[in-house]
Amino acid sequence: MEPIVFYDIPADAFQDRMWSPNTWKTRYVLNIKGLPYTTVWVEFPDIAAVSRKIGALPTQEGPDGSPIYTLPAIYDPNTKSAISESAAIARYLEKTYPNFKPTLIPPETDALHAAFEAVFWKTLWPDLRQIMLPPTNALLNPRSAEYFRRTREAMDGEKLEDWTPAGSEKRERHWRGVERALDTFAEWLGTYGNREKLFFTGVDISYADITVASFLIWIERVLGKDSKEWQDVLRWNNGRWARFMDAFRKYEAVDVGVDAEV
Amino acid sequence: MEPIVFYDIPADAFQDRMWSPNTWKTRYVLNIKGLPYTTVWVEFPDIAAVSRKIGALPTQEGPDGSPIYTLPAIYDPNTKSAISESAAIARYLEKTYPNFKPTLIPPETDALHAAFEAVFWKTLWPDLRQIMLPPTNALLNPRSAEYFRRTREAMDGEKLEDWTPAGSEKRERHWRGVERALDTFAEWLGTYGNREKLFFTGVDISYADITVASFLIWIERVLGKDSKEWQDVLRWNNGRWARFMDAFRKYEAVDVGVDAEV
Repeated sequence: MEPIVFYDIPADAFQDRMWSPNTWKTRYVLNIKGLPYTTVWVEFPDIAAVSRKIGALPTQEGPDGSPIYTLPAIYDPNTKSAISESAAIARYLEKTYPNFKPTLIPPETDALHAAFEAVFWKTLWPDLRQIMLPPTNALLNPRSAEYFRRTREAMDGEKLEDWTPAGSEKRERHWRGVERALDTFAEWLGTYGNREKLFFTGVDISYADITVASFLIWIERVLGKDSKEWQDVLRWNNGRWARFMDAFRKYEAVDVGVDAEV
Repeated sequence: MEPIVFYDIPADAFQDRMWSPNTWKTRYVLNIKGLPYTTVWVEFPDIAAVSRKIGALPTQEGPDGSPIYTLPAIYDPNTKSAISESAAIARYLEKTYPNFKPTLIPPETDALHAAFEAVFWKTLWPDLRQIMLPPTNALLNPRSAEYFRRTREAMDGEKLEDWTPAGSEKRERHWRGVERALDTFAEWLGTYGNREKLFFTGVDISYADITVASFLIWIERVLGKDSKEWQDVLRWNNGRWARFMDAFRKYEAVDVGVDAEV
């Protein structure tokens, strides 16, 4: 088969340019399944044009009803299909390439996986975004950083630097919210009495786990392995998340790829 | 085996006394698995005393930290165990009686089932309670009705009759919220492209389906089969919920049981 084209957002502050939690989901899926692919790096202001060029659909609507295009997106030259949105991409790859194992969304868990995605955002995102968007902005390449700041500050009406300054009570409060969210995931994982169960569907990684791992690696990379926050994560829930992330280490390869031509 | 003792709340307005969505979950589980059981009917003001007597744990905390006891609860004379909270009861029965099929929480869906329970409440409950608690109150037996009104009005600071009066804009708005919640469940069920898929884990009823069915039968019974609202539910999502509830009809048997001695 021809390699799938995977559209991702670069941050040259990282040696492998990889930072986005949403695109990590797709990269983990591709790496875990061993699907051949090649990365095209797209700066934020170019995402709409690139998406339209390949025929990927917008994934959101602005307050005025205007289409919003986001990454990840893929173009599959084997089927001449473009797909956007990480869960839709995962489902497309499962259906189109069933022989590439493991199955990450077992059919009997598909509807429950959809419910999980919904509750995942409600549980973790409101607090985590307050902590993570400001330092993420500081690491983006200049054209993306300007775009990211403008759009995110428009949502919240406050300068990124004022969201959760170091040492602020707000920062403490949102970080406790992140801890509660991970406690909640750990509680769901341990419901059946097996407190050591690492993965949502049991012994193998599934797409729900990939979703969690993609947001954890974002914390690890943007705040840094030595940060107080990452050390908290490794300690919480009796070291569960350290063991959990260890299982993902072999799937973190990032190809060099090419920059998008716009 | 000796019959499991199932503690439920009666409403004599119904011939079989059955109305509570939370206890329907346990009754469906018992009926679907064909486990032998007998019902003990407990009025609201007696739930705490009965729970303490059998050794069932409180399931919630009041604002002052005081324990709140709820039904369903079961007492299993075969293991001398008391269990409260519908999902905990379902998991207890699965573990203790694995030979009683079907398996309603397949192990590979257990953590995702826990996530589903969390998002189910967030999605359906806030709007549905506004519509359903006032007419439910009107159908309870007098001692329970007084207790139910007092505790529910204390939560909301408004007389039950003013929550969502017939024809009010508030009622319309909350009912649209219920419709959106069912749309969301239908969307999750159809994620993999099979728009006809009725049950969360595929071809068989699972505990997630039982959760949804228990709240739908509450609407059907309390508002009535001929109500505008129930007719809406049957029509929504191309009749999906009518077909869905048809699958539960054979599991609606209610034994006569006995009244709790307090």
